[in-house]
Amino acid sequence: MNINLQLDALRSAYREGRTTPRQLLLQLRDKAAALNPDYHLFIHLLSAEEMEPYLAALDGRDPDSLPLYGVPFAIKDNIDLAGIPTTAACPAFAYVPERSATIVEQLLALGAIPLGKTNLDQFATGLNGSRSPYGACPNSVLPEYPSGGSSAGSSLAVALGVASFALGTDTAGSGRVPAALNNLVGMKATKGLISTAGVVPACRTLDCVTTFTATAREASQLLALTARLDPRDEYSRSNPLWNDGSAFGTPRPFRFGVPRAQDLQFFGCPEGPLLFGDAIDRLKALGGEAVELDLSPFLEAARLLYEGPWVAERYSVAGELMAQNPEAVLPVIRAVLAKAPAVDGVQTFRAQYRLQALKALCDTALEGLDCVVTPTIGRPVTLAQLKAEPVLRNSELGYYTNFMNLLDYAAVAVPSAFMDNGLPWGVTLFGRAFTDQYLLSVADALQRQQGLAAPEPATAARHDRARLVVCGAHLDGLALNWQLKQRGARLLESTVSSPDYQLYALAGGPPFRPGMVRVKDGGVAIAVEVWELPSSELGSFLTGIPAPLGLGKVQLADGRWESGFICEAYGLEGAVNISHLGGWRMYLKTLA
Amino acid sequence: MNINLQLDALRSAYREGRTTPRQLLLQLRDKAAALNPDYHLFIHLLSAEEMEPYLAALDGRDPDSLPLYGVPFAIKDNIDLAGIPTTAACPAFAYVPERSATIVEQLLALGAIPLGKTNLDQFATGLNGSRSPYGACPNSVLPEYPSGGSSAGSSLAVALGVASFALGTDTAGSGRVPAALNNLVGMKATKGLISTAGVVPACRTLDCVTTFTATAREASQLLALTARLDPRDEYSRSNPLWNDGSAFGTPRPFRFGVPRAQDLQFFGCPEGPLLFGDAIDRLKALGGEAVELDLSPFLEAARLLYEGPWVAERYSVAGELMAQNPEAVLPVIRAVLAKAPAVDGVQTFRAQYRLQALKALCDTALEGLDCVVTPTIGRPVTLAQLKAEPVLRNSELGYYTNFMNLLDYAAVAVPSAFMDNGLPWGVTLFGRAFTDQYLLSVADALQRQQGLAAPEPATAARHDRARLVVCGAHLDGLALNWQLKQRGARLLESTVSSPDYQLYALAGGPPFRPGMVRVKDGGVAIAVEVWELPSSELGSFLTGIPAPLGLGKVQLADGRWESGFICEAYGLEGAVNISHLGGWRMYLKTLA
Repeated sequence: MNINLQLDALRSAYREGRTTPRQLLLQLRDKAAALNPDYHLFIHLLSAEEMEPYLAALDGRDPDSLPLYGVPFAIKDNIDLAGIPTTAACPAFAYVPERSATIVEQLLALGAIPLGKTNLDQFATGLNGSRSPYGACPNSVLPEYPSGGSSAGSSLAVALGVASFALGTDTAGSGRVPAALNNLVGMKATKGLISTAGVVPACRTLDCVTTFTATAREASQLLALTARLDPRDEYSRSNPLWNDGSAFGTPRPFRFGVPRAQDLQFFGCPEGPLLFGDAIDRLKALGGEAVELDLSPFLEAARLLYEGPWVAERYSVAGELMAQNPEAVLPVIRAVLAKAPAVDGVQTFRAQYRLQALKALCDTALEGLDCVVTPTIGRPVTLAQLKAEPVLRNSELGYYTNFMNLLDYAAVAVPSAFMDNGLPWGVTLFGRAFTDQYLLSVADALQRQQGLAAPEPATAARHDRARLVVCGAHLDGLALNWQLKQRGARLLESTVSSPDYQLYALAGGPPFRPGMVRVKDGGVAIAVEVWELPSSELGSFLTGIPAPLGLGKVQLADGRWESGFICEAYGLEGAVNISHLGGWRMYLKTLA
Repeated sequence: MNINLQLDALRSAYREGRTTPRQLLLQLRDKAAALNPDYHLFIHLLSAEEMEPYLAALDGRDPDSLPLYGVPFAIKDNIDLAGIPTTAACPAFAYVPERSATIVEQLLALGAIPLGKTNLDQFATGLNGSRSPYGACPNSVLPEYPSGGSSAGSSLAVALGVASFALGTDTAGSGRVPAALNNLVGMKATKGLISTAGVVPACRTLDCVTTFTATAREASQLLALTARLDPRDEYSRSNPLWNDGSAFGTPRPFRFGVPRAQDLQFFGCPEGPLLFGDAIDRLKALGGEAVELDLSPFLEAARLLYEGPWVAERYSVAGELMAQNPEAVLPVIRAVLAKAPAVDGVQTFRAQYRLQALKALCDTALEGLDCVVTPTIGRPVTLAQLKAEPVLRNSELGYYTNFMNLLDYAAVAVPSAFMDNGLPWGVTLFGRAFTDQYLLSVADALQRQQGLAAPEPATAARHDRARLVVCGAHLDGLALNWQLKQRGARLLESTVSSPDYQLYALAGGPPFRPGMVRVKDGGVAIAVEVWELPSSELGSFLTGIPAPLGLGKVQLADGRWESGFICEAYGLEGAVNISHLGGWRMYLKTLA
């Protein structure tokens, strides 16, 4: 068997009859069973019998009839699969769910086939993958290093080629740290985009379900298929339509934040700064402009996670078990949770106020940026180093990841290099909530640059900001420009349209208004400006535009089409053709 | 002196030279000083000297140069005015702030003049106005009833005609209950729209600054002037532009929720059901369609406020004082706060989970509704009844108000009737966050219906939903209709355009697309549908529309202009005029 498990390749294999779901899954099951047992990958590898109902559901179906037809996936063992025990890596906690988690139900309905439940740091509390009674998970490349955690086995399942993708969870970095260490894309989407119903909570207000894939493109496909409002999960949120799958594409010139030198921590790893510098250079080569970012409020938020009251959320789940049967919980997890009962309500609210204050600072820092890049981990540590200092080394792994969920940002960990010893190394791209597909587009561009991904997508990547071409009173400094500024818009460029337009001074006014009209013959280039504003504010801007003007698509000099002002033909009655002036500002000068 | 203090009337008086700010404010100061001392209205009435700097700032200015030129206002004494003590009705807590609260700074900069600091239930903990060491505030109409609280003195200042408006605060109803009892509009805007920087917190995550005015129109003006993002307040939020002042207008036909009979509580007051029924009838007469609403999840959320951990937020402010000096705090407030130290972190998070679950239910219940109407209070109680059962009677007053801030809704209390004994009675209109100006528009329509407000505004009231006229593949059930449904759109009406349009089948496709073009001559009425979708999703819808189509303004048969599809003239090349068919569906039939 030599089947490429990436989503598109696997679909081709099925289409061409090179394998079948039953054949592939049983082969993968055998492969998984034959893995070195030191990987401790699966807590429960499904038997052929346990897989059979899912395979049978595909019998006689066309491979193109389901988006994830026959796609093998692994499930972190804090996520329910009906009929199979969920342990959260704590045998005393185990239960057999009657119903699968919503995300698992979604994937099954899309045609994906579960292979097994994977090992994790107990109760998803840890970032290294060694905190499990089912055994420590070593790294897929260098076994003297850990897999990373807490979604340890899930990262191994994809890295070792027994699943196309795997589900993890992420409260403080559990879906990103193992991705970095195993050369995978780890997608921690905006909180609430993927349902957490049927997932053992770590911190209910922070938990996210994540995916491990070989490529950002696959992560985009999976997110587009599963980001749905779930009535079973009260923390579920609607995905704005600018963040649906269609927004995946090639990033246009963008601005990315880079932490100040004093905020970077590599914990003595000499390769870190070089590898990170290299990633920054790659982003620049993709059209990115680096902007220095003060990371200190982000890092202060990160410290709240374990020093603050959020540990009481973890206790909310495991506390009862711990009180009744302390030995059932690993000593290192007990040590973390032991602080929880002392947390009081006043402290809890005060920490939430502090977080809100930090979030306000961080949100301000993100204004005008399309994304931020950080290392995913400061430095890798060996299993031996981890054993010597289990808490300190673990917390170092979360330096760049702990703040993300608290601050409600989206993040994708993407491989960017290998260290001299062969260990994978990667960066994290993060940004405002609901910019997931944009971040994945940038991650995809990084992977394509390294020859690791499919050809360039034809579409332009979009995020939570929309572009708008203006040609009249909305130009910078003119009479209606405040309508853009009031909406938080910023000027991206002053340019001209393609030479296909005529500009008219419409009858009536004040306010005096231009009509920009596309013509088949006799067009010229008209001076325009491209602004960017929050997509959520574009609707109210449109609502305020009176006839005969409207918003449609305008072509720019370089051939791009962007949303911008158009004019209905009937509105040209009594209008004066001012095309020869080349733009509205020039026309205004003639009036002065 | 016989000056009408409502904003527009006062502006006219200044313009016409009938009074000046200095003259008016000193007269109002005298009037306030001469009030029956049993009102206990002001904790600190500004002296002429203390007012002088604010008056001097207006000297020589034109009344039209500042939106609130010379407008007298009162400030609840948990909101800072620089140089004047803030007591929160607790003398031992008092301090003299160096800087005013942001909202006060805003109002001063707009030309408003502070008259004094008003009495309140201590630490804003109460809904009746009698919990103050500065004396109980009686009702402005029937002195054997309380003013309502906690913004007691602020409501009296407006009701008794010593201020144009007054600032209150509202955590559980403190800005609405006194409005109902004193025949005022009490506006509790969406959390974060009005900065709370410089306000003594009650529950930091829930507190709102409110306004008391005679009319909804004034509340709209004040909100439009002051809803700004404030870097001093980390809970401050940007106001979406659909909710700026320009959205104030006349409500179009709307759907309003009415609680089920079993959810209504009048606590034995026989007039309540009749008065509430009358308010519902008035809303119907304004074009509202009543829809039954299950209020039980809202009421369960309300119970969380005092039974749950939020009391720890109140303790966060007064707790230290209480621990050091219990006698400094009123016994009834001590009794409320005494529960706080026992609240632990696990409980706090669990209650927040429960609130989130209830919010998901309540948000679902609000879908498809423009607003909800409830009584503001179930029944008024006399001061004697309140004294006999201070906690129970107080909590009854919050039956319809306690859930609002927890659930993040906007609410306006508006007078709707008088009881047989002459006591004012009113309803509350509430809705989703950021529908404030819409709610005020409905409240204004209610007041106009009673002859209490200015003539009808010319504009149509808008809220967080936008209307869109479609004429082609987006029609219900047709090929691209999913783009609307995916955005949570609902069909409002099937109608026709004004008889000014031609419909073309554009060249190219599939997808086959129509172009609807307004013409001067030879137009016909075209079949269209009006859909409504979240304004925040309209931008991404626009972004996805390819040339030559766009969104502009389309006129309907009844003369209204709504946002809808338009077509650029150049796109008609090769198109077929299908106007005679009257609509896209009829054209599709000819193809079948």
